[in-house]
Amino acid sequence: MERDDALELVPRMRDQGYSREQVERRREWLAQKTGARLDHVGSGSLDTEALRGNVENPIGCAQVPLGVAGPLRVRGRHAQGDFYVPFATTEGALVRSYERGMVTLSRAGGATTRVLVDENRVCPGFEFADVGAACDFAAALPGWFEDLRREAESTTSHGRLLRVVPHVIGREVLVEFCFATGDAHGMNMVVKAAERACGWLLERHGSGRLLLFSGLESEKKASAHLLPGGKGKRVVAGATIPAALLRSHLHVEPAQMAELWRRTVTGALHAGTVGYNGHFANGLTAVFIALGQDVANVVNAATGITRLDVLPGGELHASVTLSALTVATVGGGTGFGTARECLQVLGCAGAGGAAKLAEIVAATVLAGELSIGAALASGEFVAAHEQYGRNRPGG
Amino acid sequence: MERDDALELVPRMRDQGYSREQVERRREWLAQKTGARLDHVGSGSLDTEALRGNVENPIGCAQVPLGVAGPLRVRGRHAQGDFYVPFATTEGALVRSYERGMVTLSRAGGATTRVLVDENRVCPGFEFADVGAACDFAAALPGWFEDLRREAESTTSHGRLLRVVPHVIGREVLVEFCFATGDAHGMNMVVKAAERACGWLLERHGSGRLLLFSGLESEKKASAHLLPGGKGKRVVAGATIPAALLRSHLHVEPAQMAELWRRTVTGALHAGTVGYNGHFANGLTAVFIALGQDVANVVNAATGITRLDVLPGGELHASVTLSALTVATVGGGTGFGTARECLQVLGCAGAGGAAKLAEIVAATVLAGELSIGAALASGEFVAAHEQYGRNRPGG
Amino acid sequence: MERDDALELVPRMRDQGYSREQVERRREWLAQKTGARLDHVGSGSLDTEALRGNVENPIGCAQVPLGVAGPLRVRGRHAQGDFYVPFATTEGALVRSYERGMVTLSRAGGATTRVLVDENRVCPGFEFADVGAACDFAAALPGWFEDLRREAESTTSHGRLLRVVPHVIGREVLVEFCFATGDAHGMNMVVKAAERACGWLLERHGSGRLLLFSGLESEKKASAHLLPGGKGKRVVAGATIPAALLRSHLHVEPAQMAELWRRTVTGALHAGTVGYNGHFANGLTAVFIALGQDVANVVNAATGITRLDVLPGGELHASVTLSALTVATVGGGTGFGTARECLQVLGCAGAGGAAKLAEIVAATVLAGELSIGAALASGEFVAAHEQYGRNRPGG
Amino acid sequence: MERDDALELVPRMRDQGYSREQVERRREWLAQKTGARLDHVGSGSLDTEALRGNVENPIGCAQVPLGVAGPLRVRGRHAQGDFYVPFATTEGALVRSYERGMVTLSRAGGATTRVLVDENRVCPGFEFADVGAACDFAAALPGWFEDLRREAESTTSHGRLLRVVPHVIGREVLVEFCFATGDAHGMNMVVKAAERACGWLLERHGSGRLLLFSGLESEKKASAHLLPGGKGKRVVAGATIPAALLRSHLHVEPAQMAELWRRTVTGALHAGTVGYNGHFANGLTAVFIALGQDVANVVNAATGITRLDVLPGGELHASVTLSALTVATVGGGTGFGTARECLQVLGCAGAGGAAKLAEIVAATVLAGELSIGAALASGEFVAAHEQYGRNRPGG
Repeated sequence: MERDDALELVPRMRDQGYSREQVERRREWLAQKTGARLDHVGSGSLDTEALRGNVENPIGCAQVPLGVAGPLRVRGRHAQGDFYVPFATTEGALVRSYERGMVTLSRAGGATTRVLVDENRVCPGFEFADVGAACDFAAALPGWFEDLRREAESTTSHGRLLRVVPHVIGREVLVEFCFATGDAHGMNMVVKAAERACGWLLERHGSGRLLLFSGLESEKKASAHLLPGGKGKRVVAGATIPAALLRSHLHVEPAQMAELWRRTVTGALHAGTVGYNGHFANGLTAVFIALGQDVANVVNAATGITRLDVLPGGELHASVTLSALTVATVGGGTGFGTARECLQVLGCAGAGGAAKLAEIVAATVLAGELSIGAALASGEFVAAHEQYGRNRPGG
Repeated sequence: MERDDALELVPRMRDQGYSREQVERRREWLAQKTGARLDHVGSGSLDTEALRGNVENPIGCAQVPLGVAGPLRVRGRHAQGDFYVPFATTEGALVRSYERGMVTLSRAGGATTRVLVDENRVCPGFEFADVGAACDFAAALPGWFEDLRREAESTTSHGRLLRVVPHVIGREVLVEFCFATGDAHGMNMVVKAAERACGWLLERHGSGRLLLFSGLESEKKASAHLLPGGKGKRVVAGATIPAALLRSHLHVEPAQMAELWRRTVTGALHAGTVGYNGHFANGLTAVFIALGQDVANVVNAATGITRLDVLPGGELHASVTLSALTVATVGGGTGFGTARECLQVLGCAGAGGAAKLAEIVAATVLAGELSIGAALASGEFVAAHEQYGRNRPGG
Repeated sequence: MERDDALELVPRMRDQGYSREQVERRREWLAQKTGARLDHVGSGSLDTEALRGNVENPIGCAQVPLGVAGPLRVRGRHAQGDFYVPFATTEGALVRSYERGMVTLSRAGGATTRVLVDENRVCPGFEFADVGAACDFAAALPGWFEDLRREAESTTSHGRLLRVVPHVIGREVLVEFCFATGDAHGMNMVVKAAERACGWLLERHGSGRLLLFSGLESEKKASAHLLPGGKGKRVVAGATIPAALLRSHLHVEPAQMAELWRRTVTGALHAGTVGYNGHFANGLTAVFIALGQDVANVVNAATGITRLDVLPGGELHASVTLSALTVATVGGGTGFGTARECLQVLGCAGAGGAAKLAEIVAATVLAGELSIGAALASGEFVAAHEQYGRNRPGG
Repeated sequence: MERDDALELVPRMRDQGYSREQVERRREWLAQKTGARLDHVGSGSLDTEALRGNVENPIGCAQVPLGVAGPLRVRGRHAQGDFYVPFATTEGALVRSYERGMVTLSRAGGATTRVLVDENRVCPGFEFADVGAACDFAAALPGWFEDLRREAESTTSHGRLLRVVPHVIGREVLVEFCFATGDAHGMNMVVKAAERACGWLLERHGSGRLLLFSGLESEKKASAHLLPGGKGKRVVAGATIPAALLRSHLHVEPAQMAELWRRTVTGALHAGTVGYNGHFANGLTAVFIALGQDVANVVNAATGITRLDVLPGGELHASVTLSALTVATVGGGTGFGTARECLQVLGCAGAGGAAKLAEIVAATVLAGELSIGAALASGEFVAAHEQYGRNRPGG
């Protein structure tokens, strides 16, 4: 385990630090600490030409309050070290909640993270005259793989077609085209590549009505297939938290966390929930907005499973498995002003950053699960929202 | 049907209009048209004290490109008239896609919308020593309703407890507390109210281990129970589109839309998708960010069912049913600078606006389903993304 | 707790007791013990006229091996005492497995059982010209309840219409008609009653295209809605098992059972399973065949949730919650020769027996969960199948 | 298309034919037609020693009414010709319903069937100290495949290990062991084989807590993973039905069938149903009981998707896709008296019959979907149950 005193907390300030000077001081501390430039974040500067390609009929920018949570110690294959994670949110108490989870994780030695699978999928459908024709097509498909790959990859310099998986449903054949998309989200890339490959198929095979999205791809949708089937990056993050640390930082016992898991899994099962989690969506959304990710993908990215176990030695082992994490560091909104700056805060801007980003995000999500879990299990939940949240009408 | 020429489109400008002057002109047109002030949207002005209650450890604001789509004609109970809807997004082509759906809808006379249910839920769990005690508790619960209501409502000036529904699972009783929350999102409100009521229960009943969130509430999660069970506002939007209009505006036949539905529902079923939709999440996310909603709620709000039917007369009838739409016009991030301005664009800022907002959002989502459905069914999908999206590496 | 020696086991016989004489002796013991006549069970006698109403194009009868497991001590509201449960199965080791769970349960004082809800549903759909008409219909429906009840109940002497619940999906309104069906399965009864009520609706309301089954009813299907929504009888069974008893009878510790639950729930979540159970279907199927139930209903009846918790005192608390148990003691196949005899074995034949049967079945299912759980958690699973199952090729 | 007059219907008899002589005449007709001996079916003869290995604590046999439906013309790879399918059921009208579907299918030229995948799975779980260890194990697993295969196959003369697929969830690794099991159901076989292989893994790898069933296998459970993931045989059956034939035999138009599909899929989605079907479970259950299959497997076997499309030429194309059909012709209950005779009726008894049986069963299920779909779409449903079902109290 690291020495605890190696952790550098986000500077605490008087009255929580919302004055212009305090915010600036915190921003400068972060910039200095991470090497990021935070000009857009601080100034709200607006370059209207930068909107091109991101939005049509532009009228300006929406602003979303930006805070930072950390330090988050990550022991991954791609991300290693202590990170300060930008959150864009208007949910009071959220950053504080993730922060305490991060500090706890970090004092326990950090979160171990791994990217297990890294591919994006598009799933065109082909409809045939009858089931016989559909089955013939599905049976022949594997033999055409090299041709499909050549066609698909001719449309992209970064994407690589990894495999095609046919699913016959009556006279329809849904085909999963699975691509490596490098550091890009890649949905546009793989759709274009798949369309080319499907064009070749239609010419070659001479029948079948093509539909580029069959519904199987679960893009920006929640589906059970995302759990074993995945989308984008499948990432796992876990940590072993000594009981004393859990008690001192999160005011809860390992056994209470395990009991929470047992009970809320029951409720999740009763509701027919896809997977199981405490509040994946909160952290993912705040980070996605801050980092210029496609925020609508939170619907698929929030698919996964949290586990909270008591180990034989009495420690808590906590883990999150995210099966459909679609994050990118090039393309899409990642180059836009404040987003690019926030990616720099994590050292993830540009080529080579996506796997690292995935690991940091998974560790962030794990911190959030620890924190909300502890708040619920210990009964502190409402009190925390009272303290940091707003007390305005309707709050 | 309205006269088509009554529709006033968002001003078209040379080269799509991304210069500073063009953006300003469009913004002024929108402000003048809707009576909204759009100062923050245009200036990126930053008041750090405004961040308090919204975020901790503030460092500034994330900016998200903001465009406007419309006109969207809505024929609801709460929303009536033509609206211009702000989208905050970095997904190129998205606003254009929704806009063409909106124009089509509006030329067809507009979207009919209804709020069917309006309540938010929190679902505490009580664990007892055995199933006998659990069943006794569940059986007694209805008799305590007036007490629970009194306790719950003592914590809030706006929330009203509508009903409590017990679910016995073994020795656990999950209790749905269903509240009317006025124009607020209300999750903090109902959690606080339910906690008070549960405290009374524990005192009165003298046993049972309380857990404030049992997992049944599906807050910011996708679950099958959200479809019949709901959360927040259950809203439906629908429209009948003449074949000629569909052909001229969306380049597709009603029968092609129905075929698309039939085929992609099949894929959605195969994937074990919760509900069925084309891309609810895209519109919801962009609108939620623009309007200061709790964006993580998109995970539940994107739960619903799209239908695309050919009517006996040959028209298309399209509908969306959103079963868990959590939108607010007071509290949370709705008072924050750009969010409040965007709510004003819709005439929904402040008290009395939430049901109206729900209807506008449902109509927006319907427009998006029409547009993406037509793009997929007609084969124009990739081409559209090429034209409006970016052509940068990884795009 | 009862004195253990009050339990009377099924007679043990040499070499497991498969000779004609041994089988007859066991049958006579059971008949004498329960007051049932077991003529058909023993003789395979065939009255072809008895097939009428049960099957068309009759050619005889399928025979399914019948064994008995018990004693099963039940402490319900409707079922009280020790029961011997008939199983019709060809899965070797199944009866032995349930039997050891039953004996364990019984020595622990028996299973506490409760029927929480008792109603069957049919869900016709009405499709309207547009969403406006659909919403109007749904809003008016509650006001017609008394008329609907009168019409529905005019077709049946046993069924009572309890409530109607409309669900709007676009221009479609699905209506849950919830009935009390007495001791009958009631699906035919409620379909007929609902059809009459729907006819009245169509006449009264003058529009809407009726479909008698909308798909919402989940009849003989697995759906998430069955968990909170139910079908037939919602029943819970639970028991507290001292650690010493668990150890001596099932060779496992409470903590091992809880660990099994934690781990296999994870797998069930990953697979997108409806609910969670060990092998509900095994016991339900064997009992349904033996008792002349509609065996295809096992698909819905197997929907539920098993819980295995360690109590503060170190005991195991095990429970099963069956949310859609469709059992009957009159009508359907319940009057057929062997089925009626087996119902007599449980004291459930004829009017007044259904709730009692539901409690016995739930307790049976609980016994099965204990037994398979222990076999898996202790690692004895394969060995048990080797001993009692067959060793034939392909077995 | 075959000449219609080539179809030989099950003999019609006066007053439906329930007298002893009529039943015997029908049985003899069937025996002569198919070459099967139907001694047990006709006599209810009971050989108690035959119960050994099938049931413990035997007391005799349950009898289930047995009828025959057909002819069913199948054009598969394994099943070709006209079949008469035995149904064991007490649901009046069921055989008649399937029969009319079969005759319609057959007059349309028969059902095209294909077995797409043929493998059974068991999914042990291994739990490690932390996520790092779990990921290492999952990464190493593919390299051990040959060893795992050798170990697994050393326990069985028929099973072959096809592949192993690891799923990491936190510190747990679920491993799908996929086997070819020949004509056996194979669950006992693959559990035993997997246990051996897992033993080798534990010895070789030296860590990880094994659990033989992780919950991912969905054995006798309904799960979303069964749709793309499968279990046993994945089979598809489809047919093109001319409108005139549909009209004359099932009293319905193709467009009405497509409308039924569209509407009931909506209801199924709203209920969170696994897959979509009309009443797979009815046919599967009746056939499984008749043929000595493991009837509890109907829960997984009923997972699939029905499609009812209108073709450009105006015909109906109907299909069923069964993703988890677990049928066998050796082992389990398949050798038991009446079961073996019924398998002979289909020419499927013993080695070499399982794929053929799977195709016949899929075609049977298709016939049932056509028939119930037509009954619902045409409004004849209630009337049919009145005519053939019983009119006893509670019926």
